[in-house]
Amino acid sequence: MDHHHDADHFSRRLTTLARLLAAAGADVALISPGADLEYLIGHSVASHERLSCLIVPAAGPAQLFLPTLERLGWAGTSAEQLDLAITTWTDGVNPYGALMALLPQQPAVIAVGDHMPALHALNLRAAAGGSELVLAGPMIAELRMRKDHTEVAALSEAGAAIDRVHRRIGEWLRPGRTENQVAADIAAAIVAEGHDRPDFVIVGSGPNGASPHHDASDRVVQPGDAVVIDIGGPMTTGYFSDCTRTYQVAGDPDPDFAAVYEIVKQAQAAGVAAARVGVTAESIDEASRSVIEKAGYGEFFITRTGHGIGLEVHEEPYMVAGNKRELEVGMAFSIEPGIYLPGRFGVRIEDIVVITENGVQLMNNCPTALTVVG
Amino acid sequence: MDHHHDADHFSRRLTTLARLLAAAGADVALISPGADLEYLIGHSVASHERLSCLIVPAAGPAQLFLPTLERLGWAGTSAEQLDLAITTWTDGVNPYGALMALLPQQPAVIAVGDHMPALHALNLRAAAGGSELVLAGPMIAELRMRKDHTEVAALSEAGAAIDRVHRRIGEWLRPGRTENQVAADIAAAIVAEGHDRPDFVIVGSGPNGASPHHDASDRVVQPGDAVVIDIGGPMTTGYFSDCTRTYQVAGDPDPDFAAVYEIVKQAQAAGVAAARVGVTAESIDEASRSVIEKAGYGEFFITRTGHGIGLEVHEEPYMVAGNKRELEVGMAFSIEPGIYLPGRFGVRIEDIVVITENGVQLMNNCPTALTVVG
Repeated sequence: MDHHHDADHFSRRLTTLARLLAAAGADVALISPGADLEYLIGHSVASHERLSCLIVPAAGPAQLFLPTLERLGWAGTSAEQLDLAITTWTDGVNPYGALMALLPQQPAVIAVGDHMPALHALNLRAAAGGSELVLAGPMIAELRMRKDHTEVAALSEAGAAIDRVHRRIGEWLRPGRTENQVAADIAAAIVAEGHDRPDFVIVGSGPNGASPHHDASDRVVQPGDAVVIDIGGPMTTGYFSDCTRTYQVAGDPDPDFAAVYEIVKQAQAAGVAAARVGVTAESIDEASRSVIEKAGYGEFFITRTGHGIGLEVHEEPYMVAGNKRELEVGMAFSIEPGIYLPGRFGVRIEDIVVITENGVQLMNNCPTALTVVG
Repeated sequence: MDHHHDADHFSRRLTTLARLLAAAGADVALISPGADLEYLIGHSVASHERLSCLIVPAAGPAQLFLPTLERLGWAGTSAEQLDLAITTWTDGVNPYGALMALLPQQPAVIAVGDHMPALHALNLRAAAGGSELVLAGPMIAELRMRKDHTEVAALSEAGAAIDRVHRRIGEWLRPGRTENQVAADIAAAIVAEGHDRPDFVIVGSGPNGASPHHDASDRVVQPGDAVVIDIGGPMTTGYFSDCTRTYQVAGDPDPDFAAVYEIVKQAQAAGVAAARVGVTAESIDEASRSVIEKAGYGEFFITRTGHGIGLEVHEEPYMVAGNKRELEVGMAFSIEPGIYLPGRFGVRIEDIVVITENGVQLMNNCPTALTVVG
């Protein structure tokens, strides 16, 4: 199964971006290394403070601008198969002026990638004689948020890989071990089950589970603990997995744990049931949130319900109040309500879904029923 | 040996930055997670697309603005010991407007950290009603580029740790092994010798050494190969190591290898000998470059001679033509000339030095004489 795209695919993406730029009144998009670059040309190499940039004019061919010392690293990549002109600059030259000299005329409006560091964005603006800067993110999101079949296959492969890790949690999560020890075993399994690398391994035991972005610590897991395990990373395709389950360690749990777990499970199921073509992103948040609010725990659900996922673990569309974007076939996102009780415990359940013509396809398929381990 | 700073130290840095902002006519600096934040308040947590920001007004107290779900992760950190006011924002709120509402008045000039993503920088500008954006980097560099005793001790500890890895290269670098196999062993040793994590492990054997930022590949090391090994990472202090040696694998090398090695060794020594208080950064580049040019290899030295180092592996000051910055006590940077012969091999030798009152202190102390391994 080949989850990689061919050069024609990237050419079409570049053409679509140029059309969106023209429609938005921007003269050129400048995209630095990261997920946008990988999406548009299939290759990206971080270059620290040195400027690397894809130039996508609203009219005319795209081209690449790279540090001389990085040039050999692009040999044989998809960027070469795209026949992009590649210009290099050598240390000691002002790269911002050299990039602007490649454009047929001074741009009035430059769209910069959302992740471009301010260092490059402001220096490019200055080199252009004070062009207006706008974000390219909203235009690129129009492409990236609608996954094609190859991308959905890559997300499905990632989901299956992280599901295999979750099915093995009982091997590692036991009373007497530290969160860090459990996390190290999970990190190794994330790679063993097919990921390129672990990107995040949250092991939030007991009160640490009440901090949604807790990492892992030296806290020793106790009998009866609720343990939030939120894990994922990119596959070699670049597409991410992301799945959360909350486990109970054998023993006496907090007296409210079972009830809270059941509320979150129902809230998560309600979000999945609400997801279909044509409803708004905020309606998914509302579907999950209303279950938690009706149960009296609204103030302890301190996050949005979900985020898009693809070449980044967080991307458009976001399932959050105020987002009136209507869901379309191919949109991929998490549904991950939670209840976080400070000083006590947290519960979160998260699956990735993709919108289909008939509802959703689940990328994760581990049961959401409570699992007791240890 | 404690290489961490106390709260007073961070308070002084914030006060100095406020003074530099006032002098530059900026009303406020906005600093997102990364090395600048770690330098200014001793703690930093990446928060993906959600805005986390240190607010440093030219007049008035600094404060922190964080996503609600990240707040617990800051408990007990140096940021709390600094008594910074901490305000949180919850998903669904516009964080940019909420941040601006914390300021006593609309800023005319906002200085943003060099690494702040364009997403945040442009949305903050819009929320401020179209303030002028400038880079905070040059002001923060005035602080960061002059290392104090604690920072020099941390760099020295990092240098000693990476030196211990280089002394063990012979255990792993042998004909018949791939670059990736050698790199995996080196990565493990970087951690075993005291680093927090490996950040880069360049193993450029034979023709791959001619690409200065080559990573590691499936190429099998051959007898007689020149192998560029450029390795480093952060210690738990956050301060980086970075050291390059070029090894020769036993066998028949390229007929020009020994002579090229000797030229690079002399160029590197010339850069070190030139480094002292009061000379310009570009004069270090010139000192190394002139040795290589006189030997007829100038066109194959395709990089600057060095970069500053501290909480980032590349930071100010850069040893590059055009940089007339005068070196001062406490400035820390690499001296790493190289000769890169496409299709054949590369040679680079790199040490980190710190400017002292009497010349330089070397952070790396492995011999630069040619080492034959395998």
